[in-house]
Amino acid sequence: MTRAPELSVAEWFNIDEPLTLEQLLGRPVLIHAFQMLCPGCVAHAIPQTQKVQATFAKTDLQVIGLHTVFEHHEAMMPTALKAFLHEYRIGFPVGVDAPTAHGGVPETMAAYEMRGTPTTILIDRKGNIAANMFGQIDDLALGAMLQGILDAAE
Amino acid sequence: MTRAPELSVAEWFNIDEPLTLEQLLGRPVLIHAFQMLCPGCVAHAIPQTQKVQATFAKTDLQVIGLHTVFEHHEAMMPTALKAFLHEYRIGFPVGVDAPTAHGGVPETMAAYEMRGTPTTILIDRKGNIAANMFGQIDDLALGAMLQGILDAAE
Amino acid sequence: MTRAPELSVAEWFNIDEPLTLEQLLGRPVLIHAFQMLCPGCVAHAIPQTQKVQATFAKTDLQVIGLHTVFEHHEAMMPTALKAFLHEYRIGFPVGVDAPTAHGGVPETMAAYEMRGTPTTILIDRKGNIAANMFGQIDDLALGAMLQGILDAAE
Amino acid sequence: MTRAPELSVAEWFNIDEPLTLEQLLGRPVLIHAFQMLCPGCVAHAIPQTQKVQATFAKTDLQVIGLHTVFEHHEAMMPTALKAFLHEYRIGFPVGVDAPTAHGGVPETMAAYEMRGTPTTILIDRKGNIAANMFGQIDDLALGAMLQGILDAAE
Repeated sequence: MTRAPELSVAEWFNIDEPLTLEQLLGRPVLIHAFQMLCPGCVAHAIPQTQKVQATFAKTDLQVIGLHTVFEHHEAMMPTALKAFLHEYRIGFPVGVDAPTAHGGVPETMAAYEMRGTPTTILIDRKGNIAANMFGQIDDLALGAMLQGILDAAE
Repeated sequence: MTRAPELSVAEWFNIDEPLTLEQLLGRPVLIHAFQMLCPGCVAHAIPQTQKVQATFAKTDLQVIGLHTVFEHHEAMMPTALKAFLHEYRIGFPVGVDAPTAHGGVPETMAAYEMRGTPTTILIDRKGNIAANMFGQIDDLALGAMLQGILDAAE
Repeated sequence: MTRAPELSVAEWFNIDEPLTLEQLLGRPVLIHAFQMLCPGCVAHAIPQTQKVQATFAKTDLQVIGLHTVFEHHEAMMPTALKAFLHEYRIGFPVGVDAPTAHGGVPETMAAYEMRGTPTTILIDRKGNIAANMFGQIDDLALGAMLQGILDAAE
Repeated sequence: MTRAPELSVAEWFNIDEPLTLEQLLGRPVLIHAFQMLCPGCVAHAIPQTQKVQATFAKTDLQVIGLHTVFEHHEAMMPTALKAFLHEYRIGFPVGVDAPTAHGGVPETMAAYEMRGTPTTILIDRKGNIAANMFGQIDDLALGAMLQGILDAAE
């Protein structure tokens, strides 16, 4: 198992205090990496993450959105993201992945070696990466994976 | 927990030897009760059960279809069911729920107190009913429930 | 243009008097040929025809269903079709395409040289075949074709 | 019939020369008014307009997109729209509806008394408004309406 690298976030939406994976140790975590102008994220992955949030609301799963902008930076600034989160009624915590000085792939996206958006990352109670999946994931399989990390021992 | 009543099946399709819950003790079981002329079964529940079969193929989950005819009996005889299973490419074992002398609700459907079709029943490794659900179930929730009974001890 | 062959129907559902294309001359007609155990008909073509019926209710378009059984005959007898029409709430007139002595493709299906089900046939006000389409048709294109034959002169 | 007010556009994408309704007189026109952060536009209306563009490519129908920003102005500037058009592969001409000095509803949106986004406007060959529809429109009905204005005399 690979240890999940800590998040590197420039700004948070929907929460008052920053979240860290270190704090969350002992709980399973789903990180949903997206871009607001990524069609596959908007059509499938974001609604799926919203459904995960609702379906597992009574468990100790923590859902985190991560805005991993690696293209069209000027079109997806935090101001635009804020309007997007409002229009799409996204209520889970969303962090802006910290940009690097040279532009391109932001810090957390690089640390997890993500191949693009959407990417769904599952972290188990021990803080290890249980899954790192690029693209569209079937609900039935995702439900099973999430229950699997919920059932696993700390 | 309620003990899962044994299946009462008049005829099987897609398998050579009859299946019994007694044989399957120790393994989780999903029973999908349907009627071939039930629109909700055809549109949602049957494709979902086919996806369960594919998604959990490497586990010891046993998927069973149960044709619980309680109306339009003359239109849903085993001959028609056989054509239906062929056209819809249904590959999991399907039993014809045993009709009663007076017509109406067949025997297994009555034993499980099913309210109609589709009904999805989950049986855990101990042979108890873990869920008995009428109507459409979300894939994400079903995936989680199935993983839950897969993870539970015998 | 090819003259639309007359319908050869063994039995009608949802109407009291038989329909003939000769009677309907001067009005545009949509014939929806289906089988009750054809998955593509049930999932797409039948709901589309129901939507055509509702969308063009105020025009003089006549929608006709035609049950063109060419396989699994014993599973799709008129008794089964009657239950099917009830369960799927199909309200437009449906004729049972007249079987031939040797089984196989029924009479109207043969006369129109249909390749399978679903098939959608459009007949213009002059009684000519305006379109004879096998498989799934896009709603936008079908809407345009129907308006085209509605707008055309008698 | 109401005469269609001329477009008031600050900037065009996907064409070299500005389009005017005056130039287009004699041809039917579909104006699709949207905002890039409007969920109903992204999920339904924009894909529908792309399908209109493809389905009616061989006719003289002119499809025009109009970015009618009336909220979250700072998140939907022309730079962001350009990235959006690229990511969603929108190939038809898109005009930025001219903002007013006081913000709020832009000029063309006001002239057509649009109630929000998405709005679909059909203009006939004579330059009159044939339809002004707010919200989601069924493909079958839209196909019929478009064929209706295509068939109508100049």
